[in-house]
Amino acid sequence: MNFASDNWAGAAPAVMSALARHNSGFEPSYGNDPISGSVNQTFNEIFERDVAVYFVATGTAANALSLAAYAKPGGVIFCHTDSHIQIDECNCPEFMTSGNKLVSVPGTNGKFTAEALSGTMTAFPYGVVHHGQVAAVSISQASESGTIYTPAEIAAIGEVAKSQGAALHMDGARFANALVSLGCTPAEMTWKAGVDVLSFGATKNGCWCAEAVVFFNPDDGRNFEFFRKRSGQLLSKSRFAAAQFEGYFDNGSWLSTARHANGMAARLDEGIRALGGKVAWPVEANEVFPILKRFQSETLKAAGARFHEYTATDWPETLAPAEDEVCFRLVASFATSEEDVETFLKAYADVI
Amino acid sequence: MNFASDNWAGAAPAVMSALARHNSGFEPSYGNDPISGSVNQTFNEIFERDVAVYFVATGTAANALSLAAYAKPGGVIFCHTDSHIQIDECNCPEFMTSGNKLVSVPGTNGKFTAEALSGTMTAFPYGVVHHGQVAAVSISQASESGTIYTPAEIAAIGEVAKSQGAALHMDGARFANALVSLGCTPAEMTWKAGVDVLSFGATKNGCWCAEAVVFFNPDDGRNFEFFRKRSGQLLSKSRFAAAQFEGYFDNGSWLSTARHANGMAARLDEGIRALGGKVAWPVEANEVFPILKRFQSETLKAAGARFHEYTATDWPETLAPAEDEVCFRLVASFATSEEDVETFLKAYADVI
Amino acid sequence: MNFASDNWAGAAPAVMSALARHNSGFEPSYGNDPISGSVNQTFNEIFERDVAVYFVATGTAANALSLAAYAKPGGVIFCHTDSHIQIDECNCPEFMTSGNKLVSVPGTNGKFTAEALSGTMTAFPYGVVHHGQVAAVSISQASESGTIYTPAEIAAIGEVAKSQGAALHMDGARFANALVSLGCTPAEMTWKAGVDVLSFGATKNGCWCAEAVVFFNPDDGRNFEFFRKRSGQLLSKSRFAAAQFEGYFDNGSWLSTARHANGMAARLDEGIRALGGKVAWPVEANEVFPILKRFQSETLKAAGARFHEYTATDWPETLAPAEDEVCFRLVASFATSEEDVETFLKAYADVI
Amino acid sequence: MNFASDNWAGAAPAVMSALARHNSGFEPSYGNDPISGSVNQTFNEIFERDVAVYFVATGTAANALSLAAYAKPGGVIFCHTDSHIQIDECNCPEFMTSGNKLVSVPGTNGKFTAEALSGTMTAFPYGVVHHGQVAAVSISQASESGTIYTPAEIAAIGEVAKSQGAALHMDGARFANALVSLGCTPAEMTWKAGVDVLSFGATKNGCWCAEAVVFFNPDDGRNFEFFRKRSGQLLSKSRFAAAQFEGYFDNGSWLSTARHANGMAARLDEGIRALGGKVAWPVEANEVFPILKRFQSETLKAAGARFHEYTATDWPETLAPAEDEVCFRLVASFATSEEDVETFLKAYADVI
Repeated sequence: MNFASDNWAGAAPAVMSALARHNSGFEPSYGNDPISGSVNQTFNEIFERDVAVYFVATGTAANALSLAAYAKPGGVIFCHTDSHIQIDECNCPEFMTSGNKLVSVPGTNGKFTAEALSGTMTAFPYGVVHHGQVAAVSISQASESGTIYTPAEIAAIGEVAKSQGAALHMDGARFANALVSLGCTPAEMTWKAGVDVLSFGATKNGCWCAEAVVFFNPDDGRNFEFFRKRSGQLLSKSRFAAAQFEGYFDNGSWLSTARHANGMAARLDEGIRALGGKVAWPVEANEVFPILKRFQSETLKAAGARFHEYTATDWPETLAPAEDEVCFRLVASFATSEEDVETFLKAYADVI
Repeated sequence: MNFASDNWAGAAPAVMSALARHNSGFEPSYGNDPISGSVNQTFNEIFERDVAVYFVATGTAANALSLAAYAKPGGVIFCHTDSHIQIDECNCPEFMTSGNKLVSVPGTNGKFTAEALSGTMTAFPYGVVHHGQVAAVSISQASESGTIYTPAEIAAIGEVAKSQGAALHMDGARFANALVSLGCTPAEMTWKAGVDVLSFGATKNGCWCAEAVVFFNPDDGRNFEFFRKRSGQLLSKSRFAAAQFEGYFDNGSWLSTARHANGMAARLDEGIRALGGKVAWPVEANEVFPILKRFQSETLKAAGARFHEYTATDWPETLAPAEDEVCFRLVASFATSEEDVETFLKAYADVI
Repeated sequence: MNFASDNWAGAAPAVMSALARHNSGFEPSYGNDPISGSVNQTFNEIFERDVAVYFVATGTAANALSLAAYAKPGGVIFCHTDSHIQIDECNCPEFMTSGNKLVSVPGTNGKFTAEALSGTMTAFPYGVVHHGQVAAVSISQASESGTIYTPAEIAAIGEVAKSQGAALHMDGARFANALVSLGCTPAEMTWKAGVDVLSFGATKNGCWCAEAVVFFNPDDGRNFEFFRKRSGQLLSKSRFAAAQFEGYFDNGSWLSTARHANGMAARLDEGIRALGGKVAWPVEANEVFPILKRFQSETLKAAGARFHEYTATDWPETLAPAEDEVCFRLVASFATSEEDVETFLKAYADVI
Repeated sequence: MNFASDNWAGAAPAVMSALARHNSGFEPSYGNDPISGSVNQTFNEIFERDVAVYFVATGTAANALSLAAYAKPGGVIFCHTDSHIQIDECNCPEFMTSGNKLVSVPGTNGKFTAEALSGTMTAFPYGVVHHGQVAAVSISQASESGTIYTPAEIAAIGEVAKSQGAALHMDGARFANALVSLGCTPAEMTWKAGVDVLSFGATKNGCWCAEAVVFFNPDDGRNFEFFRKRSGQLLSKSRFAAAQFEGYFDNGSWLSTARHANGMAARLDEGIRALGGKVAWPVEANEVFPILKRFQSETLKAAGARFHEYTATDWPETLAPAEDEVCFRLVASFATSEEDVETFLKAYADVI
């Protein structure tokens, strides 16, 4: 019953098999291997346009370097109060952008609206040197609360961003989970809605170590090779990353693993709600955030369930944990079994 | 006949097998997995003392972050004119150290002496704010010229470094190759000779993506977790790196692969010399640097040999390439076959 | 009727006279002049202990470099929501600290309490690498709202800071105004209350360009000369800064100019309140923040009054400007005349 | 007999008088004062085109921020081996450019040629990510050796720079000294010869604290206000800098002070040579570099002469100091008197 994180899983079979398939023989290093070339082509197909793709080692690096490409001296980057780049990346975005400031935009359900963004941005009028200058807007898809922006919501945010000269970045650490949840195309969820650059995460959804930065306007990435190398993110045996992506995309493996993970989360959500349990946010991807009395949560742990507590700034009004309550996060991945879900729900039924 | 680089090879069998062995089930992320714990213990045993070990994604990151741990405002880092950190890392050390300066120390054979270091350091007297302050000294073992510092040479350099308050860093991208060449212990080649921090490279010698920063005085690394995370180098599925190291060390696999690579390089060297060929530097690890007329080099390429040209600043006096000559680099790895070596030598015999 | 800012004034007579007095002849540059030596001694006397004093060119530099001296990789710096370092320094603190994050602590009256600080800090538990590590706490004395921390309030904040391993910085852009307002000693307002480092501002209160960073534990500044020089803040003709400070301190000139400025602000405050006007915060130093209908404010401008509008995040509950209202800032300096104050109050009486 | 440095002098009378003239009353801060506006216009006239001018506090800041405006990730900046930015700025250029690398170009007489630049640049071919990317070229006018580039030499360097996509920066800490020495126009010495950005130094030649960054293509400075503010270089009482420049330019004061300084240096040079003394480099501006036996130099000091020793990397072949010799630097400024020069020459005659 392990729901601690989707990066507690190993690599999916399709990924391991691609790694084995491409292990023998010699291939050029530093991105010049033919597997990288072919995977780049797959990215073009997935996004229905020519994109510039750069592999990096971690999701944090993907986010920070995406933002570095649009950073400015005194630059300001807008993101959700509870976003990963604001809370969980140890200032990597600030460091990689040479000191751009991350300004929080509030919003319930882990998302902010175009209106909220616009409101926050008014504190940074054009040309006022003391306050810095607008550089980028970043949204997470899926969000830290496991919720999803619709293409229309993204487009509205994108318009506000563009109107202020800001680039729009999407942190897609759980891109596939969001995609299969929406049922739209990758293009509709990104550049067609105004996204300029995407952190395309594959690690959580089935790889060992496969993250990519995708520029929808390839020219925006003209300096990116240098940003990547100067931060020690250019993998020498680059075929190793390329092979993972090849396996990831093979036969739609990535969509299957994401669907499975989302399905397991939905089952958890349904089960909990059916038992009268509280869940903080709508379950739209592969994460469920139940709220329990602390002693109930401890009983679940004692029964063998693994999960982390979760603290947000923006709680839904009616659901914020009370003094004696705790919110915890259940994350499903390709490796989550139906059995584990059922076992958990039984244990949950016992404590509630 | 591929001698382009040791990072053109895939992963060694022991490494692939360890990855497969540890692929199933759930393990804590971000370095808290038990495999990491056990590998850390192996590092302690290898170095005969408690060391602090941190995995990172690339050799460049290992070098730059090692140096960041000892960086100072206005800091100066001394390294060989032709060193990787000076020439081949796109200013990653400068960036990660927030602008420390890399000052070149000259020296033949890809190495500098304690005397040369001392001489270069005189331009940076203590407390002269304009010139900056001495922060660290970095040596490469094996060097970019495929040569090796003896423990005595390292110790002499270490003494100069210490006398000026500088930490001593070793870029061990080819640590194993140097180690088996010297036949000494890892401890003798490092902390017993005054090395404070080591970039322990495993990728070139048989892993996919496995590099570690090793602090011999663990307290020196007290901030390192933060340096690592803020540069996007904390791998989420950390067991993936740990498993590679486990396989790497398993049954002395790392020493075997290094011995094989060195042996192939020695065979190339002997063969070339036996044919009256010129080789720029003594072959002490897994790299050979022949010098040929340019047309001869082109003929070799046409015969199917793959290698890169190499340009140094410090040529051995009697061997610097003439106008119509070119120096090229042959790198052997665990994947280099005896057949390829023999084929190459036959082709070489034909052109010379 | 110019109340736009205390840096719209020139230099006070004592300062101009010291500059003239020290203009002739040759003096060592870069801080080695005897005037600097003598001024440093004056600082020791003022603070009743040996302090380490470093002149820099601007208040922003003083703040950012003070913080740089205590920065950490992934470091977090706590400051008021409306503080100058958070709002008005174009990310200079983030840049100079290589990406430390400024986290806002809320609080009314431009100040935060020890409790509020403690609450905000709980989101940054020790050793959680994702969130970064606590580095420093910064308070402004006087605050952006023209209010003042009592020594007891500072001490309480200092205790929270120390308990979390954070240094305590004071932004003293208006240090003298706060000092004469409290009527305590400089020591009581700083190191005796737990302050580690002070941005000692003299420009606003009568100099041309004279700011200093003061370390109360001189060893904390051991690297500061290098921080200063690497950011281009080491003045070559350093006697020019030293001379200003000499004039500033001469015969208590700095206390007189501050008292005058505070007195003018108090007169404005009393006058406005006597006329039934609203003032956002208690006037404790040299700034007054009246709230008027926008048309009234425009009428005042038309009458020749110069001031800036002011926007805060933390408004006093009962005083936040309504839709049709505006808060504006009146700043008094040594150059503010009683006449101007009276003229303003007459104009104010006309519009209210 | 003080020849230690031109920044051991105070401020010239025209500068002091302008400061006094503009001291009273209120003026907008942060560069919005009318004096700044009028001085900017003077810069346009001096350079015969519309330029963008930004005041900063120090020459080091002017250099580093000029380069920051053209920096790139992994960027490389070419400068003379003995240049101030390479040797004497405590890595400020590296810091302000977020880790660009300063690569030395050799050359006698403190200058490098277009050919030498071109040769050094070949190690940085376009698009090789490991080596970084060409960003800028910097020359010093006058050089650290007191020599001067002719407009033709600058133009040749500018052509090489442009052909590689590099901006051309001029460190004009002693701009006026070079200008009056050449007898050309400011335009001919700068943008007409390909200079993109200039550190216009006025401090050494008669101001207290007045340095400017001048962009000849104003659009190149579009982000400069943010670069300046984020490094704490935006002076609050900006009229103070503007007034100095006003006095500096008044009635050609700056040219007179430079002519005087150069004349004093020429007199020193002639006197020393007439006595059979050695001088390391041609005296083309306001610096003289005699070479003496160490005991002779000590005798001069004992006689009351103040100067610094000087160490270069690129010595003129026939003049490099022998073991028992020392090179020292004599700097003349507006404050250097003929009497001091004569007294020095007499003392020199006694020791030689």
